[in-house]
Amino acid sequence: MITLASDFGTPYPAAMRGVIFRRTEAQIVDISHDLPAHDPRAAAFWLRFLLPEYPPAVHCAIVDPGVGTDRDAVVFRADGHAIIAPDNGLAYPTARALALGERASASHVADDGRERDTHALDDIGIEVFRLSTLDPASTTFHGRDVFAPLAAQVHETGVGVLETIDRLEPAPDPIRMTLPDAIVSDDTLARGRVITTDDFGNVITNILGKVIPDVDHVTVNSERVPFGDTFAAVQPGDQVVVIGSHGYLECDVREGDGSDAFDLTPTDSVTVRF
Amino acid sequence: MITLASDFGTPYPAAMRGVIFRRTEAQIVDISHDLPAHDPRAAAFWLRFLLPEYPPAVHCAIVDPGVGTDRDAVVFRADGHAIIAPDNGLAYPTARALALGERASASHVADDGRERDTHALDDIGIEVFRLSTLDPASTTFHGRDVFAPLAAQVHETGVGVLETIDRLEPAPDPIRMTLPDAIVSDDTLARGRVITTDDFGNVITNILGKVIPDVDHVTVNSERVPFGDTFAAVQPGDQVVVIGSHGYLECDVREGDGSDAFDLTPTDSVTVRF
Amino acid sequence: MITLASDFGTPYPAAMRGVIFRRTEAQIVDISHDLPAHDPRAAAFWLRFLLPEYPPAVHCAIVDPGVGTDRDAVVFRADGHAIIAPDNGLAYPTARALALGERASASHVADDGRERDTHALDDIGIEVFRLSTLDPASTTFHGRDVFAPLAAQVHETGVGVLETIDRLEPAPDPIRMTLPDAIVSDDTLARGRVITTDDFGNVITNILGKVIPDVDHVTVNSERVPFGDTFAAVQPGDQVVVIGSHGYLECDVREGDGSDAFDLTPTDSVTVRF
Repeated sequence: MITLASDFGTPYPAAMRGVIFRRTEAQIVDISHDLPAHDPRAAAFWLRFLLPEYPPAVHCAIVDPGVGTDRDAVVFRADGHAIIAPDNGLAYPTARALALGERASASHVADDGRERDTHALDDIGIEVFRLSTLDPASTTFHGRDVFAPLAAQVHETGVGVLETIDRLEPAPDPIRMTLPDAIVSDDTLARGRVITTDDFGNVITNILGKVIPDVDHVTVNSERVPFGDTFAAVQPGDQVVVIGSHGYLECDVREGDGSDAFDLTPTDSVTVRF
Repeated sequence: MITLASDFGTPYPAAMRGVIFRRTEAQIVDISHDLPAHDPRAAAFWLRFLLPEYPPAVHCAIVDPGVGTDRDAVVFRADGHAIIAPDNGLAYPTARALALGERASASHVADDGRERDTHALDDIGIEVFRLSTLDPASTTFHGRDVFAPLAAQVHETGVGVLETIDRLEPAPDPIRMTLPDAIVSDDTLARGRVITTDDFGNVITNILGKVIPDVDHVTVNSERVPFGDTFAAVQPGDQVVVIGSHGYLECDVREGDGSDAFDLTPTDSVTVRF
Repeated sequence: MITLASDFGTPYPAAMRGVIFRRTEAQIVDISHDLPAHDPRAAAFWLRFLLPEYPPAVHCAIVDPGVGTDRDAVVFRADGHAIIAPDNGLAYPTARALALGERASASHVADDGRERDTHALDDIGIEVFRLSTLDPASTTFHGRDVFAPLAAQVHETGVGVLETIDRLEPAPDPIRMTLPDAIVSDDTLARGRVITTDDFGNVITNILGKVIPDVDHVTVNSERVPFGDTFAAVQPGDQVVVIGSHGYLECDVREGDGSDAFDLTPTDSVTVRF
């Protein structure tokens, strides 16, 4: 199985699928091609949320504002999966979650609160390879010309024997992106930021839900809002803060647009008192 | 084959696909994840239109403004298909169409005009099972944590022997949603409403096309509009009323947006004189 | 393999998939159902870009503002592929590219600059068949009722023996659409037009990139803009002209919307001085 994820929208991913089908009979599964555009950090959040749900597979993920530069492609191997991505850190949070056996559901968010990264890659079971993308054939569509052929080759060769692919070389020091959780003070205040919004308009923060005690309301920036187990805690059209399926606080409106109502967009800072 | 339909947009359905692929090698087919958001009635219309085109399969359909409440999941079995959905009536019109052998094309809309429901489920060949969704693991993503695993289990067990799945129990009284057709008076007037709009901006009503006689124009609310066999009856940019492929009247603009031009949105009432 | 492409958005293509799955176990691959609506010329550009990347397959492509008229369906056979489309020229540029072995990457755009069409279909290895679509069953959804069943039948019969399908007849004179490249004067000026925009807001012209010499800037209409190898040539938010992966000039904004910034939409004329 080869999965594809990108911020390419449509129809560019169809070219990648064709390139892969010319090279292998592998099943192709689209994760999403509407990952947050030009935002590797938000995209990395979604990939860490989604890819650990899959059986071992070859994943090809591309969100890269630097496309067309001489950035290398990297292949992370962890827990039987291979993740092919630009060397901008995009794949690292997922590789780390896979290696550590973390699932992106509320009950599985790591206990240590913040995602620290004091371990060597080897120590947590991640191996990384690198492919130079310097290829004059196309300066603007590495997805079709570099990543798709590499995904097909990795699938055909086998994730377990990536070492036998000549054009891959070990990459001991890939760029590592971290997705730090919000800072909590005095058990009453979390200072975080908006990671992303979803198609419903829900605003996803980096504040871990489990830091919030059993309260009825919280104060988001300066606005007091019900804190509920589910959207059903409020009427349609009303604001509510819930713990999303990813384990983080969401600022939502039931059957409405939380981003509008809370006036929050990605990277905005969010302070929640509880 | 497992089909998936929802109002989840992207990227949430990718988590459901992963969960299913971890449990079965079944083929997954996406129906749509952009069904009308928070509108089970409009979604039920589309499902009744789409799913009867498929060979026998396990269908998993979720549009549920009450997500996160303690609503059960139900499984309808009809004509060799299984439809898994929240117990809000969403799956019933499709199950009924499957059981009665109705296809959602213009020539197959039921002759009785309105969808009455005086029959017992047994009498028309529908069986229903129930799964309690009370599971503290996640309060906001039943699609991933309840419905996807159930779809995989139903597929692996077999639609014909759902009775052998321990956690399913018979559900003699599921919620039944009906999609009543418009009322016709004096063979000159239909009083209906807007069911939904499509991606072209076409406004789909619940007025059966076959009630309209062979006329050149009809009056929609107070506006006189050509009534054509096809969009080609008018020039690009002009309003036209046609019978859609689902058998119902549509208020359209050729190569334009009918919803804007007719000022009609879902649930609005529509009166058509002919 | 059967590929599907259209401007149908969602959820109509799901009906086509069901119809096909009822008739064959072929793999279905969605190219895109968000091709430029009602714009066969722009859609033809994308199909020529995308389909040559695929292994031999049955392609079903529908973008047809005349839907519901009595336009025939045609089947182009070229290089082992079959392309089923309305007889409005949509499939011709792709069939021609397949027959001539042209790939839609920068290094493979035909050397002759303009796409002339002085050859007979036979001479370049294209065969065409025709299916009358006059069928009273549905006047508005030929995708489901005509094209999908035909795609399934062509797949089951085999692309190599289309002649054995009774309802197909030879079509020596299908409509041929051409996608002419821009006119270049004095090696300093290209007069072209906008073909389409993509999901990033990039404006794709019909000006072949290879006509531009090694310069730092070009003048688009009356605006002087950097001409770069990649988006990375400018800062985020800035305008840039690049050669896209299709080989044509694009008017882009790095991490922004080129269509807004250049005030260009499809069919607008574009003059580039260099």
